[in-house]
Amino acid sequence: MKQKTSTSCISASIKESPRPLVYLDQAAARPVRPEVLQAMLPYFGERFGNPSAVYDLGTRAKEDLDAARGQVAGLINAGVEEIIFTSSGAEANNLAVKGGALAQRHKGRHVIVSAIEHHSVLNSARFLERFLDFEVTFLPVDGQGLVEPERLKRALRPETVLVSIMHGNNEIGTIQDLAPLIAMCREQGILFHTDAVATVGSVPVDVKELGVDLLSLSGPPLGAPKGTGALYFRGKLRLVPQIHGGIQEDGRRGGTENVPGIIGLGRAAALAREEVPARGPELHRLRDLLKAGILEVVPLATFTGHPEKRLPGHASFCLEGLEGEALLFLLSREGIYASTGSSCASKALKTSPVLVAIGVPPALAQGSIVFTLGPEIREDDIYYVIKKLAPAVERLRSFSPVWRLRMAGGQG
Amino acid sequence: MKQKTSTSCISASIKESPRPLVYLDQAAARPVRPEVLQAMLPYFGERFGNPSAVYDLGTRAKEDLDAARGQVAGLINAGVEEIIFTSSGAEANNLAVKGGALAQRHKGRHVIVSAIEHHSVLNSARFLERFLDFEVTFLPVDGQGLVEPERLKRALRPETVLVSIMHGNNEIGTIQDLAPLIAMCREQGILFHTDAVATVGSVPVDVKELGVDLLSLSGPPLGAPKGTGALYFRGKLRLVPQIHGGIQEDGRRGGTENVPGIIGLGRAAALAREEVPARGPELHRLRDLLKAGILEVVPLATFTGHPEKRLPGHASFCLEGLEGEALLFLLSREGIYASTGSSCASKALKTSPVLVAIGVPPALAQGSIVFTLGPEIREDDIYYVIKKLAPAVERLRSFSPVWRLRMAGGQG
Repeated sequence: MKQKTSTSCISASIKESPRPLVYLDQAAARPVRPEVLQAMLPYFGERFGNPSAVYDLGTRAKEDLDAARGQVAGLINAGVEEIIFTSSGAEANNLAVKGGALAQRHKGRHVIVSAIEHHSVLNSARFLERFLDFEVTFLPVDGQGLVEPERLKRALRPETVLVSIMHGNNEIGTIQDLAPLIAMCREQGILFHTDAVATVGSVPVDVKELGVDLLSLSGPPLGAPKGTGALYFRGKLRLVPQIHGGIQEDGRRGGTENVPGIIGLGRAAALAREEVPARGPELHRLRDLLKAGILEVVPLATFTGHPEKRLPGHASFCLEGLEGEALLFLLSREGIYASTGSSCASKALKTSPVLVAIGVPPALAQGSIVFTLGPEIREDDIYYVIKKLAPAVERLRSFSPVWRLRMAGGQG
Repeated sequence: MKQKTSTSCISASIKESPRPLVYLDQAAARPVRPEVLQAMLPYFGERFGNPSAVYDLGTRAKEDLDAARGQVAGLINAGVEEIIFTSSGAEANNLAVKGGALAQRHKGRHVIVSAIEHHSVLNSARFLERFLDFEVTFLPVDGQGLVEPERLKRALRPETVLVSIMHGNNEIGTIQDLAPLIAMCREQGILFHTDAVATVGSVPVDVKELGVDLLSLSGPPLGAPKGTGALYFRGKLRLVPQIHGGIQEDGRRGGTENVPGIIGLGRAAALAREEVPARGPELHRLRDLLKAGILEVVPLATFTGHPEKRLPGHASFCLEGLEGEALLFLLSREGIYASTGSSCASKALKTSPVLVAIGVPPALAQGSIVFTLGPEIREDDIYYVIKKLAPAVERLRSFSPVWRLRMAGGQG
């Protein structure tokens, strides 16, 4: 099969192998875009100044930093003074949940997070609970990963100071309908944070339209380097810093700024602003093709997450009678790269809390597989995956005593 | 005067200007070393895998990450499993002070930090005090920035769980004699952290010889990119994470690892291990030349910090009758770059807490100027600085009514 699809960077990474490469784990990592790297390079060398220095080398670095801040703000329709640069989406989530809640603790010590949040939100909430006398409500979701507004309403208390519900979920693809949830919190003066790491760069995101107080984003999904992220905070919202230091980021986040990374994030944001709106339909089409193909050729495959309200190019399944990790390994030998869910948790080999939260039985959750498509993917790639997936699944199931027993019993 | 000294990166940054460049603000920023950037480049492209991914692209990234961990460990004689990568020296300080103290809070809630610590340590301690019911002792230092062991002894309490005293101070150059302080804490089972951002890469540092429990270092002083740092933690020491997330860094620090930056930090550490020991004497010699020259040509200049126990290539002064910021500006117009102290605080325009702590009167502290020499500096550069400094000082003082009054009164 002819592979006309891979970017040069991706191809180079498997140049030692003659197999094709179909990289469907965009959510875990992707190469830095060449235009982004080009923009960064001067800042490793001649433009090396510390933005806090008072002389020209420093003030120029500060100006360039703020230009990048404007580019990131532009992508999400924020004001330039409403962006804090961080070292990752996870750090942005930490600053939002802990820094936001601590700044409000005179009003109350209750926070609400959904049960399908990223570990950086869940564990930040647990830290507030364990060390800072907060109470945390972990809000259940429905079978497709949606928070029912009525359920949030019942969970709100007079002492609730912050609600954190993610925008798009990388494990099951569901995009949350945030509008009614945010409206409810705004009415009661409760801070609303959303982890938009999966959506910013994937679908158009507008903080003013959402009406959100805090929003986290990450650089790598935009083709910016690892080590970059940002937090949007509305207006003059107070935050207790989580990395204490000097005057950087207006006192909200200490440590010398990662200037080259931030310049790269800015450039990537500017590119995403141009490209993202047009990219959705083709990703949707290819995703639907993949979904239909897999459901056709693989028996007992369950599509997870919401069928329509989801990230473009995101297809997630639970396959009975196998371990997702083993399937990933077999597929990677065919040049197909996918994920079992959150890459941050994949090696922990525990049952995914997200799948548990949407009601997937633990045994079935073991067979999780997630495909995230990038703009370089073509129809041929999709057919190749469908072709290779069926025999791999069959092979793994043939090793499973549980599966054989089940087949023998005619329960399938 | 012929300038044969600048690195190509530094020269390029002022190529629009015909003036010479004498960059004496190494402590604030320096260009990434070309060898380091070369090592990093593949990780922006073909080696883009997420170290948490289970397939080959991920496991290879993980292996390379751990190789870099070994290089950083090698520089300070640590075990490879005793290094946590962070986004800055400031973040390492935050994790050490807050994460170290919180992990011990069952034993007590008292921490001790010296009065001349970096803002990231001081403000981490204040956070513990304000939000986590800790008490903090800010330990005074003597006129040269040294902590007297007797004073530390008197400050220790049964409920003291952590002491943080910096190794080298970037504002006054003093290198602390840590041995007796660490011995005292070890004897009583109290964690000892040192901020070694100024010393690692500048003088040989050996964590085993020091006997320290926690040690922070930063990438940029080694010629690694901004956005990199690391924390050494002894053996299996427990730390409460400060950036919560997934399984990265063995659960001690969440967020996708900054792989290219970490690879760069590793390479820079390997280079520093070879080069640092030999570099000291020449830096000392040039520093002494600068010191003698300035004290000779500038009346009423006070050399700050310890005369011998200090960072190689570090010369710091307080000059009466002028503002350090204004002097920096005049010098930068002659191609000379220096600092007034901590770049993180320079723009805050407050009196330096470090200078106050060593007993410099506030009016004199306003005239702080700090030179940090790098390996590219030559004798010619030093003479050029001395030549340009005297008239700049004279000019600024001529504008100062206080200075004129003083001169008229014959007090000078």
